Amino acid sequence: MNYFEESLKVHEAHKGKIEVISKLKVETRDDLSIAYTPGVAEPCKKIHENKDDVYKYTAKGNLVAVVTDGTAVLGLGDIGPEAGLPVMEGKAILFKEFAGVDAFPIALASKDPDDIVKAVKLIAPGFGGINLEDISAPRCFEIEERLKKELDIPVFHDDQHGTAVVVLSGVINALKIVGKNIEDIKVVVNGAGAAGTAIAKLLLSLGVKNLIACDKVGILYDGIDNVDDAKKALAKISNPDKIQGSLADALVGADVFIGVSAPGILKADMIKKMNKDSIVFAMANPIPEIMPDEAKEAGVKVIGTGRSDFPNQINNVLAFPGIFRGALDVRAKEINEEMKIAAAYAIANFVKEEQLTPDNVIPSALDKEIAKVVADAVAKAARETGVARV
Amino acid sequence: MNYFEESLKVHEAHKGKIEVISKLKVETRDDLSIAYTPGVAEPCKKIHENKDDVYKYTAKGNLVAVVTDGTAVLGLGDIGPEAGLPVMEGKAILFKEFAGVDAFPIALASKDPDDIVKAVKLIAPGFGGINLEDISAPRCFEIEERLKKELDIPVFHDDQHGTAVVVLSGVINALKIVGKNIEDIKVVVNGAGAAGTAIAKLLLSLGVKNLIACDKVGILYDGIDNVDDAKKALAKISNPDKIQGSLADALVGADVFIGVSAPGILKADMIKKMNKDSIVFAMANPIPEIMPDEAKEAGVKVIGTGRSDFPNQINNVLAFPGIFRGALDVRAKEINEEMKIAAAYAIANFVKEEQLTPDNVIPSALDKEIAKVVADAVAKAARETGVARV
Repeated sequence: MNYFEESLKVHEAHKGKIEVISKLKVETRDDLSIAYTPGVAEPCKKIHENKDDVYKYTAKGNLVAVVTDGTAVLGLGDIGPEAGLPVMEGKAILFKEFAGVDAFPIALASKDPDDIVKAVKLIAPGFGGINLEDISAPRCFEIEERLKKELDIPVFHDDQHGTAVVVLSGVINALKIVGKNIEDIKVVVNGAGAAGTAIAKLLLSLGVKNLIACDKVGILYDGIDNVDDAKKALAKISNPDKIQGSLADALVGADVFIGVSAPGILKADMIKKMNKDSIVFAMANPIPEIMPDEAKEAGVKVIGTGRSDFPNQINNVLAFPGIFRGALDVRAKEINEEMKIAAAYAIANFVKEEQLTPDNVIPSALDKEIAKVVADAVAKAARETGVARV
Repeated sequence: MNYFEESLKVHEAHKGKIEVISKLKVETRDDLSIAYTPGVAEPCKKIHENKDDVYKYTAKGNLVAVVTDGTAVLGLGDIGPEAGLPVMEGKAILFKEFAGVDAFPIALASKDPDDIVKAVKLIAPGFGGINLEDISAPRCFEIEERLKKELDIPVFHDDQHGTAVVVLSGVINALKIVGKNIEDIKVVVNGAGAAGTAIAKLLLSLGVKNLIACDKVGILYDGIDNVDDAKKALAKISNPDKIQGSLADALVGADVFIGVSAPGILKADMIKKMNKDSIVFAMANPIPEIMPDEAKEAGVKVIGTGRSDFPNQINNVLAFPGIFRGALDVRAKEINEEMKIAAAYAIANFVKEEQLTPDNVIPSALDKEIAKVVADAVAKAARETGVARV
């Protein structure tokens, strides 16, 4: 099937993918008087008396805004808010289909971080959570940081953290296969944009000691000056030996390569300098940093990509529906590191030990049971870290 | 039935009234590849090439934002954006149930007109129309005016224009019963807030020559200075004889009283000074300016109220679903006077001549056929006035 042609046809036939429907029938005078005036005055009054009742009488508690400015849509780049809408609608329906979360696309007509922060804060009263999507780095870091500080509902940039959670789950399972401990491994993350930075940070908070981030300029090290502030900050918390050089230099003696960079960048000779039983997640789309067969030939034990036609697909749909489901269920104030790590372990442990093979470290993105398991783990972590409100 | 108690129960049981669902099933790998990556890149690209294609491939063309700041919710006043949500959700489901329009509540965390205008402009890429709701006067006038100027999608403050359209349809039919011409009648509008001002303006554009607006200070006249600018502007275009005085003075020799003011304000002795076969729309909620039986005893021929338990209910649901349906169907740039007047005539003419009685000048709010008739009339008027884009 040609997915591109078929997708165009389906989008045109349905005029988009989302629909806003009523939970109630409105057919009789009584229906109208209950759903609308005069009856509706009563829930209004209750919420006015106690703002928290908004979770009791409205859809807020199950509603997530999928917010974009259209600056980093898929691999297409800065295509604008309108052109980003099909992705936002796609995200919205995945939220609903996989986790029963009502999600609504908000495509913003500005790239200015101040405008974006302001708009999201202004519309926040109606939403239980904010999923930032396809906002380019480094603006996405500042926007998320500010919103997390200023809002009392979860704010989550999926391109960063959703990807990071799923990669982490793959790393956890791959390490089981090769029998290495997370504290002992050397990890190279290539591509220090939104996803790469989040992956690096999450691996560090899980206990990785030796992590090196690379970008187009090569290895990031404390003191580097030809990169933006976000990358300088990443350099400071990684690369403990302050080595400098190229990606090839970084990979010498590495156990894990994680690529969120560009097609074909990882070469067989680089892999040969990695440690035995190496692990590769090559997520450039649609062409990975190295093709799975070539990687295996060069000695890689476990390889995953972003593609559905190879084993071990890193697909965010494994994470975001369940993460928000769990956060909303306990009305979490935020989605913190512990909740993300809990999600990663839930996804990893979804693959039963007897099913675990080098070609099966990540569960299928289509399994709708995963969201529930992830949600439970996330809700538990939220309670344990004191950010749950119910 | 106690609508207040029942409404509270229903709102709690359903956790609000709206739900965002998928038009597509997402169960197989193919489903996922069509609705989301990689296939979704194709509609994104098409829209990037031609922004108008956003109407072809996304839900935008059928989506209306129901925007409030919660400052003038029902008769409850400034209760805040959260407490306004039940009304906004109610509006959203009426849009869907009566006209198939997808509508989504946007409750804004600011009362500052600059913030409201900014927020609506920022979120506009995803919406085909903006329904402003329960925003207090006179701020609502400025906000609507600015948004109409700055956006290329319809912006419609329903509390003003929806009410005005339905009142106008009632006046049209009531005049048929009493056999008077609209050019000859004297109209008194009591209450010069959002609805009263819009009613006055719409009646003037339909040909009423002698219209007097009253407010708490009494008759508005050119030169009055103890009222806000919006009321001064209304005074300038009405009251051609520049009379001054009280509501009672205004009503001497009047043919029509329209109240959007306060309970019990209209007295029998005032009605007795009106012309024969007088018409009264007394829309204060929940207690009208005068009760229907008292009005009839005093000589009123046709009386309507805002209540469903009396004849001739002025209910906005007769207007807004069909008006937006029609505007969206032809992708209108705006909702202009001609479109509103067309809607009013469509509603009026929905009551067949043989059914027209003093107690039946307004069709039932529950008749879902009305939206279609209104939509057709509005679409036609949009085409004739050159604001339709398809």
